[in-house]
Order: sequence, then structure tokens, then C-alpha cells
Amino acid sequence: MESKHCIESLTIKTSRVFPNDINNHSTLFGGSLMSWIDDIASISAARHSRKPCVTASIDSIHFIQPITQKDSVCLESYVTWAGNTSMEVFVKVIAENLLSGERKIAATSFLTFVAFDVNGKPARVPKVIPESSEEKYLHETASVRADHRKERRQQSKELADYLKVEKPW
Amino acid sequence: MESKHCIESLTIKTSRVFPNDINNHSTLFGGSLMSWIDDIASISAARHSRKPCVTASIDSIHFIQPITQKDSVCLESYVTWAGNTSMEVFVKVIAENLLSGERKIAATSFLTFVAFDVNGKPARVPKVIPESSEEKYLHETASVRADHRKERRQQSKELADYLKVEKPW
Amino acid sequence: MESKHCIESLTIKTSRVFPNDINNHSTLFGGSLMSWIDDIASISAARHSRKPCVTASIDSIHFIQPITQKDSVCLESYVTWAGNTSMEVFVKVIAENLLSGERKIAATSFLTFVAFDVNGKPARVPKVIPESSEEKYLHETASVRADHRKERRQQSKELADYLKVEKPW
Amino acid sequence: MESKHCIESLTIKTSRVFPNDINNHSTLFGGSLMSWIDDIASISAARHSRKPCVTASIDSIHFIQPITQKDSVCLESYVTWAGNTSMEVFVKVIAENLLSGERKIAATSFLTFVAFDVNGKPARVPKVIPESSEEKYLHETASVRADHRKERRQQSKELADYLKVEKPW
Amino acid sequence: MESKHCIESLTIKTSRVFPNDINNHSTLFGGSLMSWIDDIASISAARHSRKPCVTASIDSIHFIQPITQKDSVCLESYVTWAGNTSMEVFVKVIAENLLSGERKIAATSFLTFVAFDVNGKPARVPKVIPESSEEKYLHETASVRADHRKERRQQSKELADYLKVEKPW
Amino acid sequence: MESKHCIESLTIKTSRVFPNDINNHSTLFGGSLMSWIDDIASISAARHSRKPCVTASIDSIHFIQPITQKDSVCLESYVTWAGNTSMEVFVKVIAENLLSGERKIAATSFLTFVAFDVNGKPARVPKVIPESSEEKYLHETASVRADHRKERRQQSKELADYLKVEKPW
Repeated sequence: MESKHCIESLTIKTSRVFPNDINNHSTLFGGSLMSWIDDIASISAARHSRKPCVTASIDSIHFIQPITQKDSVCLESYVTWAGNTSMEVFVKVIAENLLSGERKIAATSFLTFVAFDVNGKPARVPKVIPESSEEKYLHETASVRADHRKERRQQSKELADYLKVEKPW
Repeated sequence: MESKHCIESLTIKTSRVFPNDINNHSTLFGGSLMSWIDDIASISAARHSRKPCVTASIDSIHFIQPITQKDSVCLESYVTWAGNTSMEVFVKVIAENLLSGERKIAATSFLTFVAFDVNGKPARVPKVIPESSEEKYLHETASVRADHRKERRQQSKELADYLKVEKPW
Repeated sequence: MESKHCIESLTIKTSRVFPNDINNHSTLFGGSLMSWIDDIASISAARHSRKPCVTASIDSIHFIQPITQKDSVCLESYVTWAGNTSMEVFVKVIAENLLSGERKIAATSFLTFVAFDVNGKPARVPKVIPESSEEKYLHETASVRADHRKERRQQSKELADYLKVEKPW
Repeated sequence: MESKHCIESLTIKTSRVFPNDINNHSTLFGGSLMSWIDDIASISAARHSRKPCVTASIDSIHFIQPITQKDSVCLESYVTWAGNTSMEVFVKVIAENLLSGERKIAATSFLTFVAFDVNGKPARVPKVIPESSEEKYLHETASVRADHRKERRQQSKELADYLKVEKPW
Repeated sequence: MESKHCIESLTIKTSRVFPNDINNHSTLFGGSLMSWIDDIASISAARHSRKPCVTASIDSIHFIQPITQKDSVCLESYVTWAGNTSMEVFVKVIAENLLSGERKIAATSFLTFVAFDVNGKPARVPKVIPESSEEKYLHETASVRADHRKERRQQSKELADYLKVEKPW
Repeated sequence: MESKHCIESLTIKTSRVFPNDINNHSTLFGGSLMSWIDDIASISAARHSRKPCVTASIDSIHFIQPITQKDSVCLESYVTWAGNTSMEVFVKVIAENLLSGERKIAATSFLTFVAFDVNGKPARVPKVIPESSEEKYLHETASVRADHRKERRQQSKELADYLKVEKPW
């Protein structure tokens, strides 16, 4: 299985902000943005693996710039790193004021996806060859994020075991 | 400003899984779930603060159980901890097989919200009084998550400063 | 087949009111609310019967309090009474002003559902054991509503037979 | 204020049934249909009154024929009767099998609307002049439905007064 | 195969304009209107052919009157002409100011559809018998539009062959 | 007012095909695609003019390759030519089979937009400087399309004047 460049999974999605995406404070709902992030990242994962993929996790997201209805939102994503059957996808969220042209990073996000074969079993995926300095930086720091993520997944499972599900609703 | 109990911000949202929420692997899109998580958490934040609130961050989410179209999804959320103007909201996602009644924790999530006054400035919010053992556990561990989140927010801002936004799309 | 308590089919759905749910008079569309009512009631019917269920009828709904975009809408539903293969589900609609915390009953609704087996034939469902005074009141008055509903269904069928369907559109 | 004919408020809406409108039993969700019913009826009310209108009530609906994804749904509505500031709107729901052309009444519905002036106060609306035998039949029977509806509205308000709203969610 | 009258495929769809359908200039998005046009035209094609149909092309659309949120939009469509396996459908878009009752043609559109049999092969469709002067006019001018459309389809294919698809996104 | 390069208005939007976008023949609805085309083209027009823009027309669209649920859809758009207050936007629709990576032009489209100033009057927009051979080809052929479009707009207005709007629905 041949390795692939980041640019081969590059995916771009530019959207207007519609009234239903806006909260009472006149800024974009976090939930709308998270939905777009998962959507585009899943296409990057499919382009890298050429297999059906399922979201395994999403790292923390910090909304560092508000997005308003005057902005368009441009999301860029690509696979930064791949293990045997899983991939890390990076998503960059750029808010662009359509009247002034000013562009700002509104948030960034790292997601992991698992690829599956036709029998629903995890399937092997190509390795990643980073090229630009941004790609190299994100590729090299992937193992730190992976270690951290593994620890959080363990904590998340322990919390799930601790929690009760039998409340009456 | 009087403190409030967790149960005063408790919010519940049960939903069916619709065809448009399902990916090619026949499980719920991560993006649909994230959108519901933000929606319900923002109601908990409003109930605790009785002010307009905006999502500041969402911690990592690990999808530990797949959700299928046979399931209903029950989300429960409440405020676990509050600072001067910000709140941490916990969301528990329970998948219930509607035919068998089996219930499983599918994911958990912690979000932070900031409350605003009528002039758009951050506004003070009540402290939290935990009561049940679950509430106490989440309340006591909130400062560890807050420290961790602060560090990640800093990293997120540094990454945003490093990234370029002038690509032609 | 064992009987079930009302609380076993209790379902709760809290939602924000989005711009697309608002009519020109700045209040919630009746249609949006009716859609949520059917959604939650169908989950209660599934929880009581643990079978696929189809809406057979909805009693009249009176919108006794307007719902605005400042409110959240909390719907509660449970099965109040069951026959051999059909169930009556009660839905309570509570509008909550998110800034003041004031809660009002905005509407109530009774729906009937029929349960089906895997061959698409009506299937037996458990009887209902009411516990609270509200549940007992609604359980005891169910037969009056059932008689009334039967009469209206007959009228509805007679009206359908009387009406013409061949107009050119 | 001149009276108006039923045909002046006649409104027609034909729709395809989309995957998201279909329940697990492969028939149209009651909620989707109710949402379309309110949508079209509100246009009939606006055409009769030429004022902003708000849904006051919807009579019981009996789903007497299932609607599948092979069908188109044709809704017809018009104002059957008007008081000083309120109107009764009738909606006929016809399911048409698009491959065979067979058409069946799937449900009927009566809604009431109140018209408002620019200050948000109830506004006078024209009387109704029925012409066809169907219109005359529905116009003549309107007062029976109005009496019945008044009684149900009273019951609905009494039930709302009886119900508690302080449950913790 | 018997010929059919235009009125046999007549389809009408009246809709309100919702906040999400409105652009920043407070008029209806062209995209929402185009989506409704394709929806209703496909029902006309199905009614004429009583077969599954797929959109082959849509002629140019000129938005000659703006549509605002105070308007309802009424679309009328019918099959104007049929070849062996394809049909031309005409759609008339009428904007109606709900407060004044004023109605204006906002746009018109011609689409072509191909009918398919159960094996996915193009299937024969009935010829069209026009009756009204409008129907006759559109039927008689159909061959001019068909010639023109054929030429444009050829240009469209040549342009597609000329264009590159390998850009990195 | 300085002229702008095509690349300054380049906009890209990649989307998955969801179940609700699929017709009974298992291919993408023309209406969904047209809605996306208008959405992305309006962002290109805003990026070129940095003003609010409204769709004036869309040229004919020929669906030359079917799009299925296995595909992602990538739309690219940019302004090809500008007059005083109007712009022509070109949209290229590429269907990509996510499993095989095969990419095909599914359709192309030309739209025109008018820019407006704060008083709602048409506003001047920059001229276009084409660079690539594709851009030059589309820029040079723009005047032929403009002449043709003007003629069709005239025909469309004449047809609108000829048509009646007083039918009873």
C-alpha cells in the first residue's frame, strides 16, 4: 500500500451562515460548526483511505473568534497522520468577512477516523507523506496528540462505566 | 447572587435518529451528535445563569458506542461548575435500543459557556452546589479539567497564529 | 405480558426555538410544535410496547399560551392507557422563558398509536399501571376520550367518503 | 368589509415524501404531515383575511390511509367559516400513488386562526360565502364544530391548570 | 399508449418564505426557488409518464421580480411536450403579497425529464394534447426550445471535456 | 476601482450526498444541486465585489453525469467577467467516487449577479483579469453568452406578460 501526500486528502468547504445557524447572541452556533467540521473531515478520511470511515473521536475545540452572519466560513481539512487502520484529520476554520475580505482563524480541530472493509472490520490505510512546513509540523506532533488522546479515551470509558443510565426518561 | 443546584440546570433531550443523520456505515454521524450536544448544553447554561450564553469550548469527545437507526438518543446535561462569568456543562449521551430497551453510554462531553449581559459584556453567574455523588465527583474534578483546558486553549491560539489564511479559496 | 408503569414510557425533549420555527407574528409555528409532539409521543409508544408503532390519530390541540424565540420548549410524554394493540400517549408542552425561568403550559395533546409485529400485523401491547395522581386521572378518563375519538374517526371516514379527489392538481 | 368566497382562500400544496419524512414502518410521520397542514392552512387564513394570522387550535386528525414514499401528497385548504376575528380552515390530504395515479383521502383537518392588526390586536375578518355543495356542507356544519371546539378548549385550559410544571428538567 | 392532456400533469405547490430562504438583501435565494422548481416539475413528469423520472436539464431562469418574506410563492407546472422517452415541463412561479393579494410572475422555467422502466432503461411516455391557448402556445414552441437545448447540451459537453478535474481539492 | 483576478473570487464547496438529496432513481435531485450552485456562486460574487449581491439569472444546466450517494460533490466557482454593476460567475460541478477516486464533470453553470450599495441601488464592481487558459477562454466567450442571455431575458419577460396569474390557487 503506497503512502499518500496530505494534499491528496485536502478538502475545502465554504458556506454562508444562515439565520438558523445563529444564536441569540448573533454569532454562529457551536453545534452548526461542529457538524460542518465532522462532515468535511470525513471526506478527507475517505479520500486518504478510499474506504468507508467512521468518526472515533474529536479533540477539544476552542472558539477563538466569533463568526457572524456577515461572514462566510471556509473549512480546510486533510489527513496529517495515519496508523494501521486509523487516521488523524486536521480541520482549519477560517471566518471571512464578505464585505471587507478580512480572514481570521476562528477555530481548529483534530479528529480521528477508523476505516472499514466490506465486512465491517477495520481496514489498513496508507501512511502520510507531509510536504509543506505546516504539514510537517502537524505530522511530527501527531504522536503527542495520539498519546494524549489515548489517555482521554481511557478516562472517557471509565467515566462511562461510573455513570448510571437507568434514570426514568 | 445565590448559588444553584445542578438539578436546576438539568436538561433532557430525547431524539429519534433520522435517515439524514446516518453515515454510509449505518451509524449516527458524529456531526449530528455534536450539534445536539451543543444545543442541549446551551439550554443548561441559560437555565443556570438566566442570561444569553455563548459556547467557548468543547472538550474532546470519544464515540465509545455506535448509535444506529434503531436507537433513540437521550442527552442529559447540567452545569457542574461555575467561575465568575463562565460555566462548565456536562453532557451524557445515552443510546437506547427502542426494541430491546437496552441503554448504553455512547459518549460524554464537557463544554464551557460564557454568560453575557445586555451590553454584550461577560456577566456574573451563580456558583454551583453539587448534591448527588455523580455531581460531586464532576464538581470536584472540574478544576483539573479547567487547568487542562486553559493549556489547550493557549496551544490552540498559538496554532492559529502559526497557520496561514491567505490560500486562494 | 406484564403491565408497565407510566414512568417506563416517560420521554422528555427540550428544544430551543430557531428562527425557522417562528411565524410573522413572532411566535412558534403550530406546525413545528405538532411535529415535535408526534416525534416524542412515538418514542413513548415504542418504550411502552418495544415494537414499531404508527400514529393512528391526534386529538385536538389548543394553543393556550404563545411560545416566542426567548423560550425553550420542554415536551413530556408517557403512555396513559393501552388496549390490545393500541396506546394513548399524553404530551405536555411547557414553554420556559430562558431569561426569567417562568414556565407555562402552552398546550397539551393526546395521540393514539398502533404497535406492529415483524409481519406488519397489529401486535399486543402491555397494560398501563398509573401511579401518580396525574397519571391516575388521565388513565381513568381515557375511556371517555376513546369513545369520543371513535365517534370522530367514524365522522372523519364519512367525510372522506363524501369528499371528491379528482380535481385537476 | 365584503364577504369572500371559499375559492378566494383556496390553497394547494403538492409535495414529494422524502426519506426524512418516513418512519421505521415505511410510512409518513404524522408530524411531517401535521407540519404541512399548519403551513398551508395559515396561507388560506392569510388569503381570506389579508392580515397576519396565528393558529389557535387544530381539531383531531385521524390518519385513515397510510402514505408511503411512492406517493405524492396533495393538500388542499380553504376557509369554511369566519367569525369576527377568527376563521375555520379545512384541509384535505390526498395521497397519490405516482406510478398508478390512484388517489385516496389520507386525512382531513380543521384548524382555527385568529387575525391580528399592526398593533397585535385581533382584527376583523370577512364573512365566508360558500358555493359548491362541499363548501356549503362544511359551512353549515361549522357552528357544531365551533361549539364542540369551545368545550374542548375549556377542558384543555382546565387540564393545564391542573398539571404541574415544576418537574426538574 | 394514449396521449394525455396538460391538465393531467398539472401540479401546484404553494409555500411560505422562511427566514432560511432569505439572503442578506432580504429577498428569496435563487437556490431555494430552483430547488422548489425541480421538486414540482418532477411530480408533473411522474404524473404524465407514471414512471420514475430523472431531470436531464433546466433552461435558463431569469428572476424578473424579487420575492420577499411577506410573499407566498405559488408554483404551477405541467408537461408541455413529450418525445419518445423525454418530456418538457413548464413551471410558472407566482409571488403573492399575502397582505395586499397582489400577484406577479417572478420567474418561469422549462425543464426536461427522462422516464425510466424498472430495469433503469429509458421508457416510452405518452404524447401531449394541449387545450388552452397557453398550452397550445407552449406546445407549438417546444421544438424551437428543443433544438436550442440540444445545441446547448452539446456545448456543455464540449466545455466539460475541455475542463480539468485534477485540481487538489 | 482596481481590477481583480479570477483567483480572488475562487470558491470551493465539497459536500457529501445525504439521503434526502436522493431521488427514487438513486441519483442526486437536480434541485439540491441547483441550490448548492446558487450558494457557492453568490460567495464568489461577494468576494469579487465585496458588496451584497443578488442572483439575476442562471443559464441552462445540463446534467451530463449522474451523481450517486457514493460520490462527494465538489463545486468550484469564480467570476469570469464583470460589467458595470453585474458579474458572470462560472460553476464547475465535479462528482468524485469516494471509493475509487474517479472524478467527472457532472454539470457546469453560468449565473449572473448584481451588486448593491447600502441604499439598495446597483453598485459598481471591479473588472476581471483572467490568467489561466481556462479563465481566458471563459472571459473571452462571456460577451456571446451575455448577448444570448439578454435575448432570453427579453423572451422571459414577454412570456411573463403573456401568462395569466389569476387562477384560483
